[in-house]
Amino acid sequence: MAKEGKHYAKDSEVVEKLENIGKEILKQIESQKNPSYNIPIRTLGNIFFDQKSGTIKLGDKTSDRQFLNVAHSRKFMQTVLVAAEIRKVIEQKATVSIRDLYYALKHTIEGTQENTFEEQSESDPVIEDIEASLDLLREELHLAASAKGIIAGDVQLRDGSDSIDLTKMGSGGWSVPSNVEPENIEFKKVNAEYVLFIEKDAVWRRFNEDQYWKKHKCIILTGRGQPGRGERRLAQRFNKEYDLPLYVLTDADPWGMYIYSVIKQGSISLSYSEEKLATPKAKFLGLTTLDVEKFKIPKEVTIKLNALDVKRLKEMESYEWFQKKEWKHEFSNMKEKAVKLELEALSKKGIRFITEEYVPQKIKNEEFLP
Amino acid sequence: MAKEGKHYAKDSEVVEKLENIGKEILKQIESQKNPSYNIPIRTLGNIFFDQKSGTIKLGDKTSDRQFLNVAHSRKFMQTVLVAAEIRKVIEQKATVSIRDLYYALKHTIEGTQENTFEEQSESDPVIEDIEASLDLLREELHLAASAKGIIAGDVQLRDGSDSIDLTKMGSGGWSVPSNVEPENIEFKKVNAEYVLFIEKDAVWRRFNEDQYWKKHKCIILTGRGQPGRGERRLAQRFNKEYDLPLYVLTDADPWGMYIYSVIKQGSISLSYSEEKLATPKAKFLGLTTLDVEKFKIPKEVTIKLNALDVKRLKEMESYEWFQKKEWKHEFSNMKEKAVKLELEALSKKGIRFITEEYVPQKIKNEEFLP
Repeated sequence: MAKEGKHYAKDSEVVEKLENIGKEILKQIESQKNPSYNIPIRTLGNIFFDQKSGTIKLGDKTSDRQFLNVAHSRKFMQTVLVAAEIRKVIEQKATVSIRDLYYALKHTIEGTQENTFEEQSESDPVIEDIEASLDLLREELHLAASAKGIIAGDVQLRDGSDSIDLTKMGSGGWSVPSNVEPENIEFKKVNAEYVLFIEKDAVWRRFNEDQYWKKHKCIILTGRGQPGRGERRLAQRFNKEYDLPLYVLTDADPWGMYIYSVIKQGSISLSYSEEKLATPKAKFLGLTTLDVEKFKIPKEVTIKLNALDVKRLKEMESYEWFQKKEWKHEFSNMKEKAVKLELEALSKKGIRFITEEYVPQKIKNEEFLP
Repeated sequence: MAKEGKHYAKDSEVVEKLENIGKEILKQIESQKNPSYNIPIRTLGNIFFDQKSGTIKLGDKTSDRQFLNVAHSRKFMQTVLVAAEIRKVIEQKATVSIRDLYYALKHTIEGTQENTFEEQSESDPVIEDIEASLDLLREELHLAASAKGIIAGDVQLRDGSDSIDLTKMGSGGWSVPSNVEPENIEFKKVNAEYVLFIEKDAVWRRFNEDQYWKKHKCIILTGRGQPGRGERRLAQRFNKEYDLPLYVLTDADPWGMYIYSVIKQGSISLSYSEEKLATPKAKFLGLTTLDVEKFKIPKEVTIKLNALDVKRLKEMESYEWFQKKEWKHEFSNMKEKAVKLELEALSKKGIRFITEEYVPQKIKNEEFLP
């Protein structure tokens, strides 16, 4: 039985919040005040790791964006334009990409040579401002994030009017949609003991071909590299609503560790919505460089760390949430041996070593990093 | 009713072909000859555009790879190793990625300091040699290519023991597998009038959200940028087996044109198997820079060509298969106006302009480039 999920805003509530931006500004104008809009500051100085929720969070510093301030007025105009366009999109019952939104709003302001937006890099932060200030998810604003993940397992769900059975996806798998909020994706049956989050889709295909999800009663999910919001949110929902453990399987390199870090604690750039995306209970299954000895992996398939790896490794070591003895052990081993390791390297031990020995053994013995 | 497809080699036939490599070499050794293996030359000089099939093809020049030739012996060894490993993979009834294959074969040769392979860039061309020399598809060798496409439409298919209904994929879509050969993917019902091949997945999602495939009785497919073998082969199968027209929808830029070119004629790097991947009857639906005037697309959403675009455009203009008056017209317009255009730019005309006006109108009026 699913636990109660967080409440997600209805379209009408979102529209109301967006309209309130306009109403507030109108009120300011009518009382002859300088129109302004208050937004949370999203720079590093206002971001922290919240021990209680186990996620990265945005602090409570805010700033006023004022219309009658030469440094602010362009951004002020853009904020109002984006809010108005999102309202229009919601009323058309559509979902658009942030690139669509940029193009829809780009125009030359009448009587001037000036464009509302020059690049998408101008409209994206404005969207984030609105998300953060209204405490809404991008999905609630009907904006589609890129989603590239694939999933399979004994799960039945409803997506719009379609009943979808994730046991019957053949060799392809179900392509994870951009919006997996309960309003769009309703779980009907979740018959699994854990979720395995796999970094690479080529490795996911090995697990799918071997029907690992059926043999081991689990859900297999990949985000094809750094996962998108859809994949992370889906993993969070399985964890929160069904208490399913989430095990993360990545390369043994600083980039794999970072993918784990984002799945577990969240990312700095999305700090304002990480409580709704991250899965603090996630555990790191592997690979680790410590596995090389434990599983007698031939040295030939390890790769020397390069300068960029070493730099990135130092960054990982400095993160507050990696200050745990198990991680320190792994970091120091990686530095000492100066090697990294890809998931595919396990093929050296046999094509099915990863699905038949490595992963099952790690899970059975609960050999995880925290 | 499906037309007869090309015959694809059974596992036993493939194993036999692989074993024959070894038997031939053994025979040479027994008769005290210098062991050698004959492979087609895959350089530009041996590649041509075949007017008859409408695809890029490999010529008939070959070269001998000899064991007792210092310049060849490493590659000779690698060829034999790869052939032997592929045989092993097939006998284990598995499919592996080319990265898996590289790692599986990488080892230090006993009594030396030398590795069989240093980088995957050494094993990949050897795989291509074997594909080309045995006239086999990568899929027939049980090697998985990366597949990142998504598909939806009124199609029922069988994939292993799963019956898959592509009308019931919700907002996600079915993730296209790496191997879509008739032995793996059997079409059970194809109720569509054409296939729409969309460059970008964000745009595909707009078509899927609007249930374009249902309203217009078609199949919508994306390869997320440059499509993989799976997506191209799937499009080819719908075209060959069901006579479905294939319409390609890309950005109006040299990169979009190249994607179309690969879907239609094939690529130089895969010349040896393009007859099995390309769809010469494909038609280019859009975007074109000529659409800017025709559809009154505001100038603000066009993008200036940069130096790289201009260079790439020159390359496109030089291709034999683009020597058609319609393309010359488009090329010269793109040069004259010096602009390009993204699919998302159509959002300027309204969120659903692309699904409700642009594409339907182009198809109705058959406004295609050849």
